[in-house]
Amino acid sequence: MTAPVMRPYLTATARFASGGDTPRDFLERCLATIDEREAEIGAFVALNVAGARDAADRATERWRAGRQLSPIDGMPVGVKDIIETADMPTQMGSPLYDGWRSGRDAASVAALRAAGAVVLGKTVTTEFAATEPRGTRNPWDPARTPGGSSSGSAAAVACGMVAAALGTQVIGSIVRPASYCGCVGYKPSLGGLNRGGSHDNFSQSCHGVLAATSAEAWTVAREIAARAGGDPGWLGVMGPATPLPRRPRTLALLETEGWPRRSDAAGRALDAAIARLSDAGIAIMSRGNDATLGAVEASLADAMALSRAINNWEARWPLNAYRERDEAMLSRGMMERLVAAEAMTQADYAALLRRRFETRALWAGLAASCDAVVTLSAPGAAPLGLHSTGDPGFAVAASLLGVPAVSLPLLRAEGLPLGLQIIGFEQRDADLFGAIAGIEALLV
Amino acid sequence: MTAPVMRPYLTATARFASGGDTPRDFLERCLATIDEREAEIGAFVALNVAGARDAADRATERWRAGRQLSPIDGMPVGVKDIIETADMPTQMGSPLYDGWRSGRDAASVAALRAAGAVVLGKTVTTEFAATEPRGTRNPWDPARTPGGSSSGSAAAVACGMVAAALGTQVIGSIVRPASYCGCVGYKPSLGGLNRGGSHDNFSQSCHGVLAATSAEAWTVAREIAARAGGDPGWLGVMGPATPLPRRPRTLALLETEGWPRRSDAAGRALDAAIARLSDAGIAIMSRGNDATLGAVEASLADAMALSRAINNWEARWPLNAYRERDEAMLSRGMMERLVAAEAMTQADYAALLRRRFETRALWAGLAASCDAVVTLSAPGAAPLGLHSTGDPGFAVAASLLGVPAVSLPLLRAEGLPLGLQIIGFEQRDADLFGAIAGIEALLV
Repeated sequence: MTAPVMRPYLTATARFASGGDTPRDFLERCLATIDEREAEIGAFVALNVAGARDAADRATERWRAGRQLSPIDGMPVGVKDIIETADMPTQMGSPLYDGWRSGRDAASVAALRAAGAVVLGKTVTTEFAATEPRGTRNPWDPARTPGGSSSGSAAAVACGMVAAALGTQVIGSIVRPASYCGCVGYKPSLGGLNRGGSHDNFSQSCHGVLAATSAEAWTVAREIAARAGGDPGWLGVMGPATPLPRRPRTLALLETEGWPRRSDAAGRALDAAIARLSDAGIAIMSRGNDATLGAVEASLADAMALSRAINNWEARWPLNAYRERDEAMLSRGMMERLVAAEAMTQADYAALLRRRFETRALWAGLAASCDAVVTLSAPGAAPLGLHSTGDPGFAVAASLLGVPAVSLPLLRAEGLPLGLQIIGFEQRDADLFGAIAGIEALLV
Repeated sequence: MTAPVMRPYLTATARFASGGDTPRDFLERCLATIDEREAEIGAFVALNVAGARDAADRATERWRAGRQLSPIDGMPVGVKDIIETADMPTQMGSPLYDGWRSGRDAASVAALRAAGAVVLGKTVTTEFAATEPRGTRNPWDPARTPGGSSSGSAAAVACGMVAAALGTQVIGSIVRPASYCGCVGYKPSLGGLNRGGSHDNFSQSCHGVLAATSAEAWTVAREIAARAGGDPGWLGVMGPATPLPRRPRTLALLETEGWPRRSDAAGRALDAAIARLSDAGIAIMSRGNDATLGAVEASLADAMALSRAINNWEARWPLNAYRERDEAMLSRGMMERLVAAEAMTQADYAALLRRRFETRALWAGLAASCDAVVTLSAPGAAPLGLHSTGDPGFAVAASLLGVPAVSLPLLRAEGLPLGLQIIGFEQRDADLFGAIAGIEALLV
């Protein structure tokens, strides 16, 4: 089969002033891909084509007049369906929210529209952004999962149905689907993008961006944060329009708890990338040659269990309210999570937060000895089957740590895409993108 | 006129086992007061009398069988109308939410019900818990404001329509109405009670409790937090069922920016209370005799302006989404706030957060030299008129600082109630209640 092709936007805008291309034409190309592939992929739960065409026409006028609202004016975007939109329902992958409309845009959506972006549709999410899949297929192979929970966002970006999309991550919900679908996935530092009007309330939750290139992911996030800020009390993503590219002097190779489960092909692909970076003169730290990194790895050994336990307590509400409304509309996984939550106490949660705090402090200590951290985004290519959204063992570390992470579609395994994950330090997202530009210059 | 009488619940429960009194009888007494006074006071926007009677009957059975769910099983409570309830609309004091139902209980409401509490009604809030009043009158004098934004909660508790009520505070919305209405108002430490399903998204916002006594305020908060936790990432209110009473050795007398606006009567009432505490052997620090406290006062001199500017940025959403829906349904104050927000940048917000951080650090330093901080809750008795909810100049400090504060109805001015405000240190709410018990033993 032909490999799906993404649709980067920033490069296209170069021809907008002359009229050689227009936001409306760009949108029509996205719509043609949707016509062609959506029936098979199932990336969207709702589309507002008429609204998108209107918005694209207005953007076309602005670019023509040189009065564009931002670099992403006219960019067609998808919005994960736990994030509210005024013009489309927000259904959260749950029958409890079948057809539900909040009547307002979420903070991130309002910011996107204020920047001129064209909100084309709502993308499929697993039930309440957890694990229960909702049928989206991987554009590289419809027999495989696109990953989750930002399933539709990753699939839609990967095959050019939209230029970029909003996702959310609390365990591995941006990095993993980006890896499986072969697009860029950016999970910012904690609090990086305002979650107002989004239904992902966990303390590790973060809004992020799926896009065709790292530059587009950064630009979209930055344009949102400039207009919506971060979560209340947080500055949000900030930094230059183009973070200064710099070749890292030292990178830390992180194994994470996913390491023993990596496929042979994934292991080889990572080894080859590390070898190229090393050959270019970048020092590579590993758990074997650096005690601080060894301690970090040890502290992350149960990152999944720790994150899940924290999420369980924090999901007691709204799951208890939903059980009260209609228990039959919750999946078995959700009911199990609620039972686990109700068996917990504040003292249990206190112990979990203490563990997380210690892990974060160890990670912060790494910043003295390396410029960024590198690992896989997933143990291998997207697995066959749609019953599961795959293994988040490599993605969970950055979520637990609250630090920025970007999955770059630079590796291949089994002829399918695989992400190289670059992880940074808290609230230093711009520095991470600078290092990414340096790494991409060596690996692309 | 006769002074309104509150209806404490914990003492009443002593007779529940014998059947000498019952939760249902208690509820009926509340309902009788509502019949008598609600037309005049206007504390509620919605009541669920049938549901409350059912819940009270179930509580009656449990107490009779010795199987009560908690010390507050059967307690009739009100819920501020920005907090979602499954059985009643949540209208937020705004025509934009006229008749709106979320179909679920907020985290705090689900916790109250799980503890057996009887959710009797939704209490009046100003528009989106800000400043636009919604007509509630003060039970001590219907020509006066009850304060805001937790207007209905304070008024309903003060005249015994409910035993306790949920409120929220971002500037002075619990402490001020408690002072004006003569009940206890408890604003916990930042993150103290889970705000899930409540529409108060500010970084300084906190859920709290209006109640007849400090012991009841503490107990209600603790029972909620045990079942709902704090905000995600926060432990929430924790501590013993009855914090150990201890007479403070040293109290700091805080002036706050409200000081020059205090009425003569309020000044005299505070002086007299301080004199009694001093006579009992408690050392009183003031800005004149303690340099740390002097620095704290200086850092709090523009607490209102700083808090309002922070709130403006954080209110950009959802106000921009509401303007998009129907600008005519926003008050002029809300539109002004939105205009102010849209003139701000992330860099402006960064400077504000830095200021707040410095203020909090100074406050934390006070803990080494005093057990608690004491000041007025308001510059005087409730002002005449319903056009304004009064002056939050004394209440804002604890909001900006993110520390626990309790308004105790221990003072009088102009024959009306006035709160003595006791302020503590972050996440040490139980210690604060221990000190309060010591102070009440001297002043009541």
